Amino acid sequence: MPKSREAACANLENLYRIFTVPEAPDSTLGAVDQAIAADVAGFLQTHIVAVERSMEEIESHFGSPAIPEEPTYVSDYAEFVKEHLVAQSVHTAAPGFIGHMTSALPYFMLPLARLMTALNQNLVKVETSKAFTPMERQVLAMLHHLVYRKQEDFYPEWIHNSQFALGAFCSGGTIANVTALWVARNRLFAPDGNFRGISQEGLGAALRHRGVEGIAVIVSERGHYSFGKATDLLGIGRDNLVKVPTDTKNRIDMEALREAVRQLEERNILPLALVGIAGTTETGNVDPLERLADYAQEIGCHFHVDAAWGGPTLFSDSNRHLLKGIERADSVTIDAHKQLYVPMGAGMVVFKDPTALSAIEHHANYILRHGSKDLGSHTLEGSRPGMAMLVHAGFSIIGRKGYELLVDMGIERARTFARLINQHPDFQLTSEPELNILTYRYCPGKVQEALQSATPEQRLEINGLLDQICQLLQKNQREAGKTFVSRTRLRTALYDGELTVLRVVLANPLTTDDILEEILVEQCELVQHPEIQALLGQIYAEQL
Amino acid sequence: MPKSREAACANLENLYRIFTVPEAPDSTLGAVDQAIAADVAGFLQTHIVAVERSMEEIESHFGSPAIPEEPTYVSDYAEFVKEHLVAQSVHTAAPGFIGHMTSALPYFMLPLARLMTALNQNLVKVETSKAFTPMERQVLAMLHHLVYRKQEDFYPEWIHNSQFALGAFCSGGTIANVTALWVARNRLFAPDGNFRGISQEGLGAALRHRGVEGIAVIVSERGHYSFGKATDLLGIGRDNLVKVPTDTKNRIDMEALREAVRQLEERNILPLALVGIAGTTETGNVDPLERLADYAQEIGCHFHVDAAWGGPTLFSDSNRHLLKGIERADSVTIDAHKQLYVPMGAGMVVFKDPTALSAIEHHANYILRHGSKDLGSHTLEGSRPGMAMLVHAGFSIIGRKGYELLVDMGIERARTFARLINQHPDFQLTSEPELNILTYRYCPGKVQEALQSATPEQRLEINGLLDQICQLLQKNQREAGKTFVSRTRLRTALYDGELTVLRVVLANPLTTDDILEEILVEQCELVQHPEIQALLGQIYAEQL
Repeated sequence: MPKSREAACANLENLYRIFTVPEAPDSTLGAVDQAIAADVAGFLQTHIVAVERSMEEIESHFGSPAIPEEPTYVSDYAEFVKEHLVAQSVHTAAPGFIGHMTSALPYFMLPLARLMTALNQNLVKVETSKAFTPMERQVLAMLHHLVYRKQEDFYPEWIHNSQFALGAFCSGGTIANVTALWVARNRLFAPDGNFRGISQEGLGAALRHRGVEGIAVIVSERGHYSFGKATDLLGIGRDNLVKVPTDTKNRIDMEALREAVRQLEERNILPLALVGIAGTTETGNVDPLERLADYAQEIGCHFHVDAAWGGPTLFSDSNRHLLKGIERADSVTIDAHKQLYVPMGAGMVVFKDPTALSAIEHHANYILRHGSKDLGSHTLEGSRPGMAMLVHAGFSIIGRKGYELLVDMGIERARTFARLINQHPDFQLTSEPELNILTYRYCPGKVQEALQSATPEQRLEINGLLDQICQLLQKNQREAGKTFVSRTRLRTALYDGELTVLRVVLANPLTTDDILEEILVEQCELVQHPEIQALLGQIYAEQL
Repeated sequence: MPKSREAACANLENLYRIFTVPEAPDSTLGAVDQAIAADVAGFLQTHIVAVERSMEEIESHFGSPAIPEEPTYVSDYAEFVKEHLVAQSVHTAAPGFIGHMTSALPYFMLPLARLMTALNQNLVKVETSKAFTPMERQVLAMLHHLVYRKQEDFYPEWIHNSQFALGAFCSGGTIANVTALWVARNRLFAPDGNFRGISQEGLGAALRHRGVEGIAVIVSERGHYSFGKATDLLGIGRDNLVKVPTDTKNRIDMEALREAVRQLEERNILPLALVGIAGTTETGNVDPLERLADYAQEIGCHFHVDAAWGGPTLFSDSNRHLLKGIERADSVTIDAHKQLYVPMGAGMVVFKDPTALSAIEHHANYILRHGSKDLGSHTLEGSRPGMAMLVHAGFSIIGRKGYELLVDMGIERARTFARLINQHPDFQLTSEPELNILTYRYCPGKVQEALQSATPEQRLEINGLLDQICQLLQKNQREAGKTFVSRTRLRTALYDGELTVLRVVLANPLTTDDILEEILVEQCELVQHPEIQALLGQIYAEQL
């Protein structure tokens, strides 16, 4: 046998091995796997280093653009992953990581996620998913029922009806919001006489057909950035994403909304969709959905509710009323990888009208044939994993009452934290929690007083310095690696310009009140940093 | 304590347990987990039942639209999942499952996927992903390098440059193709004088600015159905997805292409993008990419290559030439959950010009800030899991040479199967394999002969009956549950109408030549089915 041939055979044997021989339990990767199975919290605690390394240093281990020629032993790769990827990742499940919408996961999600990976179903079609198809359809029906509270006898007609879909399972909230607006757009420009619909003829022909200059999506200025992407993608244009000012509680200002719609009318631009937010990303506030539903009806446009974050509030008997009016929405987005405690990569959109998704229906010769039960005929995405199983598991194992407890606990905890902030002389609450999100900033009592009597120029100056302090404080806290809050810029009731504020999301059930207290204590320590002290010095020198 | 309060506390305790206490190894779910870790192939073999149950029966277990009020024990849920979901799912990893693009996975993917789930990073921003961000950027650079073969000194400037992205990591090929066309559209209508670009002003204004009636995407009639979705979504309209006829080898007909572009010109429609296919979904053929690149240059439009399936052919020294010209594409889609052997949910698109993705760049106040390294500023999706790790693992552990072996084996195996079909008197090859996909049909030797001397009406009649046989055969084979091939409808070299054909995808390294032989043997047995025999009887009565 020539040498190269011999080498190829040896490689072939190794190749078969990686497809047929499981990792030994005592191998590096086997040990990682077992450690995670036995105690994921412990594993994360031990293996993710708390102290920040510079991005440049981390990047140096991911610098080569060349795919390695030769195979690597799994154990060598596992060592690399432990040292350079796991150690330098973010402990998103830590109870002190309250800056973003990622939380600890229920334990059962891990083995079920592995089962999903092992089965490797493709939900685009029944031939590669079988029972996963009705399971996903049930999950969408359950979400539909949670939102719309239709009688149970409504569902038998639709739940497994291959012609229709009550919603679409997506990789996340952005695709869900895009899908909702896509459906709205195609329904606004449905086939009509000689016009064969926007789906066939495109947006240019659609605008000409209706004799309008453009179409617009209307949302408050707290709207998620995915609406900007969606208007760009759908050909609507970011200029036609109308961002309506909010009131002091971060809710859409109804008067400003009416004025915005009047202006659209003057410019011969048709309102495509009015979007209500149920849990703004930055402050967790809820738009007046009932009033928005009325108004959408009045002007005859699609009413979408982005409840990516706040949707699960519907589980709670005592807080559900906050979302009153959501049941009148034409479409609703809810993310599963947020408050349904499912791992990253799962969002959903449901439609009140079970025939709505027909506006984006599509078929192909080899799959998604007419009359097939293939889910792919009503989704933006094609091949997709069986993530719906994890939502199904959450609904089943945690149950409505379990989610209710989680939701109520988060809201309660946010109120507690707001109280702690209000009681502390050196912090200012910048948005009252309505759900489980709030914002605040560091602002020493003396400065708070000074701001009250300051001139507009002085306020501008001081707030600019406080913004810098806030930014530094957040960065230093992240780098210290014990706890984490995020930051954003907001117009608040405190001031007529935008302020940099700290943002806190309280969805991790393992976050205790003690941790909240410690976060404020840590921040008071962190402001002792010379750079921050210098900025404070500037404020005092200027003002006091 | 009042009773309801007491009950709530008990629930609370249970709730903490699911977040803090791992599944016991001897619990139902723990046992499933261990069985998968120890021997996934054995687990799937044992737990997925081979014999088909009716969809109606399966659906009956997923019929309730109500989310359960009360929690369920994890073990009860695990039993339900085993019996009603796992048992009734599809064994996509089986070596005899050669009908779709899903294969067995390398063993190491499972523990690494679990690690990914446990870490629950969100790749939209550095604050929730840290080392996963440079890791994903490296994966995109590696793919870019595989496609474009730029000198290694090209990469240091771009690989970790936060202003730009060499590509986008997506949930799958559809989002990748959409992203490519979105970028192409926004570059075609870039800001120009008073026109602030399509991203701002929308498609209506863009068409008016250029004084054109519409824009078109051009692809052969073998193009993936995602291009239909993309033209709908982007406002282009399905009418403006020009499907160019193919030659007898399923490759775009260059003369027909020129004619199609002439017709667009007459209608004042601007070609937005020309799409070449590297591995058509149905037949695995590759368009003449070099000639398409020339032509795209000639007419000055974006050249996209959909290599979702065939891209990994670039790993192979002996087969890479089949994709010659791909390095001239402006953008290229490659799916990781296909021939990179990564679990479902991973696609990528790379761009020749590292500044191309700026055409869809977006920012927000709380993340994706200007200058941040956040990956989310250049992706269609928002929150995303760390799937790139599994591509990184594949590249590292399997290596270029390992993937080369996999690719070469698949192509070789398809040639073997084509030989078996050609040698068999009762089967007809309907498309010669160029990569690792082929199509064929059952057509007894006598009928093959009769077709040669038949009148056009007789051919229509016989082929119609053969189509029905093909459809039944495929259905019965699927229901028997031993092996699986898929089917589609194609215009082939055999006949000027469309024929129903069986479709085979040979990417599972565990599929042996023996299995291929058995598949033909099984099909010869399956045609003994009375319904098929009746159809054959009709052909014989009519013709012979």
